[in-house]
Amino acid sequence: MTRTPSARAENSGPPNMHHVAELAGVSVATVSNVLNHPEKVAESTRTKVEDAIDQLGFTLNQTARALRSGEAHTIGLVVIDLTNSLFVDVARGAQSRAQSNAFSLQLASANNDLGMQDDHLQFFDSARASGIILAPMQESDEQIRRVRRHGRPVVVVNFDSRLTDSCRVLIDNERAGYVAAKHLIEQGRTRIAFVAARDDYQPVRDRRTGARAAVAEAGGAVELVEVQTSDLDPTGGTEAGKRLAAMPAESRPDAVLAVTDLLAMSIINELTNDGIRVPEDVAVMGCDHNSAAWGGAIPLTSVAMQGEEMGRAAVDLLLAELRDGHEDHIHRRVLLQPHLVVRESTVGRERVAAAAATA
Amino acid sequence: MTRTPSARAENSGPPNMHHVAELAGVSVATVSNVLNHPEKVAESTRTKVEDAIDQLGFTLNQTARALRSGEAHTIGLVVIDLTNSLFVDVARGAQSRAQSNAFSLQLASANNDLGMQDDHLQFFDSARASGIILAPMQESDEQIRRVRRHGRPVVVVNFDSRLTDSCRVLIDNERAGYVAAKHLIEQGRTRIAFVAARDDYQPVRDRRTGARAAVAEAGGAVELVEVQTSDLDPTGGTEAGKRLAAMPAESRPDAVLAVTDLLAMSIINELTNDGIRVPEDVAVMGCDHNSAAWGGAIPLTSVAMQGEEMGRAAVDLLLAELRDGHEDHIHRRVLLQPHLVVRESTVGRERVAAAAATA
Repeated sequence: MTRTPSARAENSGPPNMHHVAELAGVSVATVSNVLNHPEKVAESTRTKVEDAIDQLGFTLNQTARALRSGEAHTIGLVVIDLTNSLFVDVARGAQSRAQSNAFSLQLASANNDLGMQDDHLQFFDSARASGIILAPMQESDEQIRRVRRHGRPVVVVNFDSRLTDSCRVLIDNERAGYVAAKHLIEQGRTRIAFVAARDDYQPVRDRRTGARAAVAEAGGAVELVEVQTSDLDPTGGTEAGKRLAAMPAESRPDAVLAVTDLLAMSIINELTNDGIRVPEDVAVMGCDHNSAAWGGAIPLTSVAMQGEEMGRAAVDLLLAELRDGHEDHIHRRVLLQPHLVVRESTVGRERVAAAAATA
Repeated sequence: MTRTPSARAENSGPPNMHHVAELAGVSVATVSNVLNHPEKVAESTRTKVEDAIDQLGFTLNQTARALRSGEAHTIGLVVIDLTNSLFVDVARGAQSRAQSNAFSLQLASANNDLGMQDDHLQFFDSARASGIILAPMQESDEQIRRVRRHGRPVVVVNFDSRLTDSCRVLIDNERAGYVAAKHLIEQGRTRIAFVAARDDYQPVRDRRTGARAAVAEAGGAVELVEVQTSDLDPTGGTEAGKRLAAMPAESRPDAVLAVTDLLAMSIINELTNDGIRVPEDVAVMGCDHNSAAWGGAIPLTSVAMQGEEMGRAAVDLLLAELRDGHEDHIHRRVLLQPHLVVRESTVGRERVAAAAATA
């Protein structure tokens, strides 16, 4: 029963239509026809396919049969990082939707490491998960294709892959950047620092694009100051916060749009430690609604991501693909809309209280 | 290769020393002696054990060998609920420690459901995880024993199991309740509402015991008012908050110690919606440092749990047990000490700012 690691990477999972097609030297559509409409297929081709099926011990549509049999099934969810509460929300949404469909869900964090991401994919592959939901940190075609080859559907979340043969669930991060900058502009702020790092991350680039669009809309009255820092975590925020605090008051931005809440939290700490008032002197907000960043003294304005909805949608798409079979499944791209959450760090305590009283 | 669900539950994983001992009708210690000190064992006994080994295809100490071989390995972590950020912290600590030991870690939430907890244990068992870390919601001897029988060590976290043959990592929840109540008493509060639900959860009972001890220490000057609500979540908090807000001001408690931060958050909402000031009229605090509850308008005082440390310690104990082998491993019980985190909801904004300035 024990397989060597290299064999496990390539051979796990039951054989599927792709294996049959490859061995028979025909297309997957032909294999499908042999199974479903044998009358359409030439005798010689049918024989080749049937030989390949015998050789591989292939059983038609195992997942669909398993679904019908009521067996316990499982979905693997691989995310970038658990420090970001978005992914915990995704997991919670996915779990509840999986559970109501009699599937269980296991979660793994790649901890910002592509090799670790691959380890987790291989684990779920060799553990014969029914399918995998992946939030990749960058284009991961090859890792995804290997899982697919073993007959497991992969739904990609929070990353707009070039791959066209995967369902995707995305949050509109351009919109997130746009509504964030727009909010600061509506508070009368005219010099907005956009604090970011890790331009290799798609959400960072998208949020910047959105923020720039909002500033462009405002005409020449508003300026976007790009502040690059070392990382998206509190260390990067502390570094950026120190630089902002050290600027002369007259040239200092009157607002900060940090690309993550963790950055925003540390920036607020640095500013207030230097006696700079938030939001009176500088309004500060985050852009990813990360509860891990909410331990500071001033409640943080941010942009709420639809994490649970993302998890639920991903499970729905995965189950649909399991039911349809990969060949017959039409892939979808679902785009979720984030929304602004106004707290004290951009409008002050009195206005939050006043808004709560009228709500 | 496909096994039926019932067969999978009982037979997965390679045979281990327990299987050999059972089949040979001897103790595990005897099997161990046959393998390591055959000279100590009578010829007839040795033959019985060796026959059983042949019959089962048992290979000595597979995990220890695997550890030496540098293969990829994996740890399954099963927790109660992802809504509680303690478990996300545990996962992060466990993952980083696992990673630095060349193990990967997969996480599963039981979603407050014992059946789901068992499903996850069975998944990791049949996926041949090297070992399992379990945060059970209640005594789970039978589920744990089944995993153990398949040769997988189980470390129990956040629950003080009666089982003596598992390592345990605990947070001192009595201490958490004690430091929380003590803090409120030190603020001059004399009538403390202890808001709780789910007395079947060990941490709830332990925190109450600690709070009672702090109040008892204060003599007759301080009173603990027990407020029972429907659940530990925001719904339960809203219910309790409405009841507290509806009380006449003169008999209303001047402090609330909610057994979870989620309860505390909703109680603050209800009180402030009714014009009751927090903390001036009623100081409110949580007791489990759950960042999921930190989205409110008033930063929340709470008691920080050592979640990451718990995760790291659990991995260390699991790896030690893998190295030692179950029979030679001496189980440990690690008790971590929580600490108070003071924010605005019990001392007011000015005192938090003053404390930050002198820090």
